[in-house]
Amino acid sequence: RCFHFCKLPGRVMGIRLLRFTSVVIIVLLLVAGALTALLPTIKDDKLPNSRREPKTQSQSALDSFTLIMQTYNRTDLLLKLLNHYQAIPHLHKVIVVWNNIGEKTPEEMWNSLGPHPVPVVFKVQTVNRMRNRLQNFPDLETKAVLMMDDDTLVSAHDLGFAFSVWQQFPEHIVGFVPRKHISTPSGVYSYGSFELQNPGFGNGDQYSMVLIGAAFFHSGYLEEFQRQPEAVYALIDETQNCDDIAMNFLVAKHTGKPSGVFVKPVDIRNLEKDTNSGYSGMWHRAEHLLQRSYCVNKLVSIYDGMPLKYSNIMISQFGFPNYANHKNKM
Amino acid sequence: RCFHFCKLPGRVMGIRLLRFTSVVIIVLLLVAGALTALLPTIKDDKLPNSRREPKTQSQSALDSFTLIMQTYNRTDLLLKLLNHYQAIPHLHKVIVVWNNIGEKTPEEMWNSLGPHPVPVVFKVQTVNRMRNRLQNFPDLETKAVLMMDDDTLVSAHDLGFAFSVWQQFPEHIVGFVPRKHISTPSGVYSYGSFELQNPGFGNGDQYSMVLIGAAFFHSGYLEEFQRQPEAVYALIDETQNCDDIAMNFLVAKHTGKPSGVFVKPVDIRNLEKDTNSGYSGMWHRAEHLLQRSYCVNKLVSIYDGMPLKYSNIMISQFGFPNYANHKNKM
Repeated sequence: RCFHFCKLPGRVMGIRLLRFTSVVIIVLLLVAGALTALLPTIKDDKLPNSRREPKTQSQSALDSFTLIMQTYNRTDLLLKLLNHYQAIPHLHKVIVVWNNIGEKTPEEMWNSLGPHPVPVVFKVQTVNRMRNRLQNFPDLETKAVLMMDDDTLVSAHDLGFAFSVWQQFPEHIVGFVPRKHISTPSGVYSYGSFELQNPGFGNGDQYSMVLIGAAFFHSGYLEEFQRQPEAVYALIDETQNCDDIAMNFLVAKHTGKPSGVFVKPVDIRNLEKDTNSGYSGMWHRAEHLLQRSYCVNKLVSIYDGMPLKYSNIMISQFGFPNYANHKNKM
Repeated sequence: RCFHFCKLPGRVMGIRLLRFTSVVIIVLLLVAGALTALLPTIKDDKLPNSRREPKTQSQSALDSFTLIMQTYNRTDLLLKLLNHYQAIPHLHKVIVVWNNIGEKTPEEMWNSLGPHPVPVVFKVQTVNRMRNRLQNFPDLETKAVLMMDDDTLVSAHDLGFAFSVWQQFPEHIVGFVPRKHISTPSGVYSYGSFELQNPGFGNGDQYSMVLIGAAFFHSGYLEEFQRQPEAVYALIDETQNCDDIAMNFLVAKHTGKPSGVFVKPVDIRNLEKDTNSGYSGMWHRAEHLLQRSYCVNKLVSIYDGMPLKYSNIMISQFGFPNYANHKNKM
């Protein structure tokens, strides 16, 4: 049949090769087509719910932190702050501690406005307690916790830097609000800030606490908080105050060192005045500071001693916003 | 003889008692007089030499530091600075490294102006070398060394605070002058300060060295410096420069962390202009900075790698000079 072709081996080889390659190409096209049909369909951007695994959850537990924000009667501020905090670098997840008992969380609205950079979990509470935020939440996957009050705005720069400082001092409360106790000749302690006399260790002031309403600390301390004497919980519940002082006592007792490391914030703001709820924070109550002095003395008696230690270390970020922050006459 | 007396026992007893007590009193007076004669004579205040043990030498080796100050051709500045530094709290001793070869030290004048708060030892050198100050002086009794250039005045407040910071970071060079290296695409390093680009780790600047001409560090590093490769000594001698860069390499390699901790000085001054000698420091030489970049690259090749690490931690003293240094809008 192919005599005249067969006599010319090149041409015969040529056509056989051509047939072969044609068959191969057709088969490959069919396979490609089949594979294309098997590709998943591209979903549209608006997800009815954000249960899909965001890529940030692959961040190592050591390189990211969980924001825990307790909220009461200031949902407008909460949502404003969440828009800011959800985008902070190294944030792993947000846990909102919902102290608005009996009220629906804004989860539906939150989801309808997704997708969001990180998962946000609303933990509905049954009783409006100050210490609700100090539970050992199973949702916590990171070593670091960032705890923020629901009326406090700290810039991303400050948070990024403070997180890097926490990573160098992981056993301390690393935050933006320093406070101190002082002892008096009667042995009764008093709580306060710069307005109190400096503890007498040379010049300058000292602090012995860093408040947890704007601070990073190790998630292990939440676990340890569950193992405190009942009297500590009773004190916090009685005053609806002092959970942060109790945490400083816990950390100081655990480390034998000053509980906190103060990072001087470049941009920290209190948004209280901006709320529509008309609700202003607990610290406006007349008895607030007196309560806190009371708490210091009660905690000393519960822990049978004063574990808080003084520090005068103030940390700032070198060369930020610019090198003027470390210029000198040399 | 005493019949009429003896008949009256009271009167006899009285006189015998009187005699007895008189004798006792006279004997006591004689003894007292003898003791007084044996008391050491009170020396006048001007001691011909201050070899008497000052009370400060009882300070624990951990609670005090030794000032090491190398000097060349600026004896007027040296003496001015010594008057200031000799009185710094927690100072144990001063070691002056005398690089004025063949010239008498001011020891005689120093002694004639005593007493002094602490001992000052003048170490006469045989060759004028930059690295003379990095010997492991047998006079060193403290764990901490404060090294100062002979033209640098740092306030007592700054030194007291920086010493307390060193005690919390004893494996680091804790000082007042931060510098950095940067790498370039060619792999060649450059040395500099704020004028160089920020190393690309987020915002703000970073430093990778703290200069030892105004810093605290552990005396153990002087011992370790004696065990460095010969090439390091050759480099320092060739350039009469870079001993401080070499120390930062040593410390970074030893700790695996940033070598230094920068403490922002409140009051640091360069007294160069005040000298009568007309001599201004080495850093005025045209090639000074280029030499230091050269040293960085040579040290990388000697140590077979770049051990320096970056830090952006800047430490200040909380509430000093006053609380304005940590005030914020909250």
